Amino acid sequence: MRRVHGDATGFPAAADALPPVVQRSGSAMGRATSALLDTDLQQAETVISTEAQVEDRQRDLEHQAIAVLARQQPVATDLRVVVTSLRMSADLERCGVLAQHVAAVARRRYPEPAVPQDLRRTILEMGQLAQRLMAQAAEVLITHDVDAALQLERDDDWMDELHRMIFHHLMDDRWHHGVETAVDVTLAGRYYERFADHAVSVARRVVYLVTGEHTDDLADPPATP
Amino acid sequence: MRRVHGDATGFPAAADALPPVVQRSGSAMGRATSALLDTDLQQAETVISTEAQVEDRQRDLEHQAIAVLARQQPVATDLRVVVTSLRMSADLERCGVLAQHVAAVARRRYPEPAVPQDLRRTILEMGQLAQRLMAQAAEVLITHDVDAALQLERDDDWMDELHRMIFHHLMDDRWHHGVETAVDVTLAGRYYERFADHAVSVARRVVYLVTGEHTDDLADPPATP
Repeated sequence: MRRVHGDATGFPAAADALPPVVQRSGSAMGRATSALLDTDLQQAETVISTEAQVEDRQRDLEHQAIAVLARQQPVATDLRVVVTSLRMSADLERCGVLAQHVAAVARRRYPEPAVPQDLRRTILEMGQLAQRLMAQAAEVLITHDVDAALQLERDDDWMDELHRMIFHHLMDDRWHHGVETAVDVTLAGRYYERFADHAVSVARRVVYLVTGEHTDDLADPPATP
Repeated sequence: MRRVHGDATGFPAAADALPPVVQRSGSAMGRATSALLDTDLQQAETVISTEAQVEDRQRDLEHQAIAVLARQQPVATDLRVVVTSLRMSADLERCGVLAQHVAAVARRRYPEPAVPQDLRRTILEMGQLAQRLMAQAAEVLITHDVDAALQLERDDDWMDELHRMIFHHLMDDRWHHGVETAVDVTLAGRYYERFADHAVSVARRVVYLVTGEHTDDLADPPATP
């Protein structure tokens, strides 16, 4: 395990701003999942309004990075840290929007539950896994532990598997929850899967910083629905 | 109308690499739409394999930008151009993946058509609009015309409207195409809408470069399904 940036550029201050934002993204998705499974309108509204601020946070991070680039003219690894942080902040902005989307599914169907009984366990598992992957990403950001980053990527395979399970359930002739619920579940599944992809993306950028190498396969392969 | 970067940093070479990539993204989505509506497996496979290269292209753009930052230490506006280009290249990477996703819907349902007759016109319109918005984004990148960028944003409202139309159609009690088709159409609609959001995002970044101001509303509001 190797730390990849020193104090010379002063950038650690900006990079250290990222892990709490990552953590918050995970919590937001956790709360969105509660709203969805508990048919909790107030919780849904809270997630939607709170996460509306992520764009501002993301801009702050971007401006901070640009200020570092302008003032300190970092080179080599430090420069890569700044550029990578910029890309990560974009990932995190999307994560906030995805948590809002999950909450919006709950709100749209209220007071009906959006998730049928026989899919509650799978959606709960997707929500928990999403939150866990984001917590792992925050940890990787702090520790720069490449092995943990690669483990996160393997853990994301389970998200893809859960996504496939939902999909097969929808395609099953015995599906009897109607089209509206099918649409809601399709979208929610897609939101969780994308959210997890962003956690993987954050971890991959850390790997790139540490090793200088990209992991090869796409985070979001086209074969998955 | 004001051009925002000179030749001093040498970055125009890197920035000029963007418009053709933007154009290509639009064409890819056009071809994916053909594959979807014509139930054309070969076309679908071509889009999927061609767009698999976008990640490499995106990395090239990223490395180019980092090289400019390292060698030329740009400041002020030139620095913002480089950073903005980095963000745009991320948008374009996603666009390639979204075109792959549309093609993958066609492939998965082959030899069945994924889009029912009564939604063909709407999907065609979404595909064409997606391609047109991306062409506008490429133009804005070249001209830095703020008015055209704001027009693009207004044109995207029509994409949101088409997306809502699909959604209402799915929710209609008279829907008789079954759940599998509902899932396919839901996902395809979402892919087009996201694709258009990325075109808006590219245009917004140009506006930011020219005016120093962000346009305010979210590209992907949570109220939309």
